[in-house]
Parts: sequence; C-alpha cells; structure tokens
Amino acid sequence: MSTLLTPAELEARLRDIGATRYHNLHPFHRRLHAGQCTKGEVQAWALNRYCYQAAIPIKDASLIARCEDADVRREWRRRLADHDGTQADGADAPGGIERWLRLTDGVGLDRAAVISQSYALPATRFAVQAYIQFVRERSLLEAIASSLTELFSPQIISERVSGMLAHYDYVTKDTLAYFDKRPPQAKQDSDYALAYCREHARTAEQQHAVLEALHFKCDVLWTMLDALDHAYGEAGHIPPRAFRPGSFPALNP
Amino acid sequence: MSTLLTPAELEARLRDIGATRYHNLHPFHRRLHAGQCTKGEVQAWALNRYCYQAAIPIKDASLIARCEDADVRREWRRRLADHDGTQADGADAPGGIERWLRLTDGVGLDRAAVISQSYALPATRFAVQAYIQFVRERSLLEAIASSLTELFSPQIISERVSGMLAHYDYVTKDTLAYFDKRPPQAKQDSDYALAYCREHARTAEQQHAVLEALHFKCDVLWTMLDALDHAYGEAGHIPPRAFRPGSFPALNP
Repeated sequence: MSTLLTPAELEARLRDIGATRYHNLHPFHRRLHAGQCTKGEVQAWALNRYCYQAAIPIKDASLIARCEDADVRREWRRRLADHDGTQADGADAPGGIERWLRLTDGVGLDRAAVISQSYALPATRFAVQAYIQFVRERSLLEAIASSLTELFSPQIISERVSGMLAHYDYVTKDTLAYFDKRPPQAKQDSDYALAYCREHARTAEQQHAVLEALHFKCDVLWTMLDALDHAYGEAGHIPPRAFRPGSFPALNP
Repeated sequence: MSTLLTPAELEARLRDIGATRYHNLHPFHRRLHAGQCTKGEVQAWALNRYCYQAAIPIKDASLIARCEDADVRREWRRRLADHDGTQADGADAPGGIERWLRLTDGVGLDRAAVISQSYALPATRFAVQAYIQFVRERSLLEAIASSLTELFSPQIISERVSGMLAHYDYVTKDTLAYFDKRPPQAKQDSDYALAYCREHARTAEQQHAVLEALHFKCDVLWTMLDALDHAYGEAGHIPPRAFRPGSFPALNP
C-alpha cells in the first residue's frame, strides 16, 4: 500500500499533517487568540493545559527509560531540565511547569487546585494519559515521532501570545512568560526529532508508523480543545466535578 | 477526612453516584432514546460504542491476569465468555461483541470498518484506553469497583431499547438483540462486584478509593457521550479522520 519515501518526501508529508491537522486550526484556538473567549474559558484552557504540561517530563522520562541509545538519552535529557528546571521554587531559571503555573496564577487560579488536576476535564486526563502510554508502548521511532508537533508550535505560540496580549486585559507579558523560552527550545528539539525520523524510518512500514504517530499526537491536542469547547463554549456542557468558572475551587467530596 | 462507613452506607454512596453521575443522565442518551438523534448520530453512537465493547474482554482479562485469588478469577472468567462467545461466527451463542456487530450491521455500517476502529473519535479511544489502564494499574479492589456501573445498566438498557424501537424505523428487535442478554448478566456481575467491595473495602481509605473508582468509570462513559454530542450534535465538530455520516467508509490515508 505505502511506497518508500525519500527523507525529504517524508518530511514534506509530516509538514503537511501539521498544515492540515495541527490544533492551531481548531475553533477554540481561533477564539482564544481572537479575544472571543470568556475569562472562564481562558481559565479552563490554562487549567486543563496544565495537565499536559505536567505530563511532559513523565513522557520524556518514559522515552529515555526505554531507550538503549545513550546519544538519544543524552539529547532527550535536556527536555527534562527544560520542563522541571533546577530548583523547586524556580528561583534561578524556572522550568516550563513552574512557568505554566505563573500563567495559571496570572489568570486568577488557585495554584494548589491547579496542581491537584482534580478540576480538569476527564477528557483532558484521558488524552494526556494516552500520550504517555503511546510513548511507553510504541516503538522508539514512533515515540520520537509523536513529539514532532513541536515543528509547528513556534507559529501557534506567536499567534497565542500576540492575540492574548491584545485582547485580554488580565493577561500580561509576565503571565505569558512561559512562551518566551519555548520557540527556541521547540526548534532545537524538533530539529533533532525530525532528523532522527528522517534517518531511522527506513522502510515504508516505519515511515507509515512515523506519520501515524504524528496524526495520533495531533488527535491528542485536538481532542483537548474539543473537550474545552464542548464544556465551556456556548453549549456549556461542563461535566460533573470539573472546573466551573466563578466557583473555584468547589470540588465535591 | 473520610470516616469509616458500614457496608450498607458504602453501598448507598455507590448507588448515589449512579443516581447523579451515570450516563443515563447525559443529554446525548436522552436524545438517543427520545428519537431525537439523526441516523448519523445513531450510527456514530454504535460505531464508537463498539470500541468500548471490544475493550471489555481485554480489561476483564487484565483483571484476571493480576489477581492472585482463584475464586475471583473463576467468577470473572464468565465475563470473557459473555463477551467473546464460544465460536468465531457466533453460530451457537453469539457473545456480546458479535451481538454488538449485529447492531452496527443493523444500522447500516460496514462491519470491517467498524472493527478497524479507525473511524472512531479519538476521544472514544482515549477514554476506553484509560479504562483498561485503570484496571491494569490500580488495586484489585479499585479494578473491581470500576465495573460497578453495571449496577445501573439494566435501567439504561430498558430506556434505550424501548425508546429506540419506538422512534427509529431502521432499528428492529433483532438489531437490538445485544441488549436482551445483558440485564441478567449485568445483575449477576454487579451483585458479585458489589458484595466484593462491601466485604473488602475495610478502611476509610479503601472505601474512598472504591467510590473514586466508580466516579472514574462514570467519567469514562460520560466523556464518550460528550464527544459524540460535540462531533455529531448540532455544533457538528467532527474531528479529522473520524466517521462522517453519509460518506462511510472514507478514511484518508
């Protein structure tokens, strides 16, 4: 069914998935950066996205933990430091998770409640868990390929930051400091992952698996925004026990 | 925080979760049995729910696989036969999965496409996978407790069957034969699981874990209907590559 692609063709196919399936195309993202989200929606987005941020070092460590190649392990280790930082209070150089918590602080969410993840949508938790499982259980090549959404993140980040600063008066440059460091980190990370996939996807089957891994990851990100849209958008179908704007924290026992 | 409950109090708390959180309260279920779903929605429901059906023997075998108690293993083994039957073609006594496929046949879906699960919503797959993981990774007591939604299924099944027969002319008693056998099976299964939880949840912590396991399972079922509602209801946000009514099967490569 599949034919063997050249590395350049494989890269083009990967970039095409980004151009057609990445979550910058999702209605919720467009509303978020166009200033059309309520404050409750911005809070719900930050709160739910925290679950994803918190899972990143776990999935990266899972990748390192099943990798026999010390070169890959060394390279991948930098991601742990990027997200976890070097000190618990982030005094010197806060990692990505600490910087995300400054974002949730900035939009008025209780930090302990955010960290508990108890108020996140179940759909968020299931999607994030699926990502971790994918990295644990699939081939190393697929695990690496599933990180390739970072190829497209510099664009979404610039849309998000400029749009949110322009449209929401409670969002400041400090609140969004998370995003300052991400584009160069994402570029470095995705350059490596892309080169790895170009080099190691040597059969049509492996190339198909690489493409499917990126589709899968796009599904994870898309599903997270679908769930936010359904719960906090116009329809307003907030599931039991999830975050309710204006009454936070208010978890039932 | 928690105090120790009597077995009867624990059971009452479990039944209360069913009364307030079970997916018979979900708007999609209410539309489904009230005849307000389009044929595309009924098909999408049957197609997505297949993923759940197909996962049941996997989660049940996962439970048996991590259980040291032969009494529990023997009891739980019946569930495998209930779902997988005894012959591939289901000629003698079709199992639950084969009977579900007769339902998807009956609503006009291509069987191979259903079985591929490729057209299901990613949110469905993530929720189902979360259920399997839960049964694999949590304590045996929590794994058993997560099956307790069966306490409430006879009610939803009777609503579903009578409502669907009354309202959809393409749905026949044969199509819904899946549901004929489920109420007595579910009663037998849930009687056992409930007695197990009443007996083995001996500390406040264990009782809390049992209650949370049932909440988790309700979240799984609720999230599946949320995803259907968002994709196929009025808003119509079908994610990339998922089932599209009227153009099935039509998966992109």
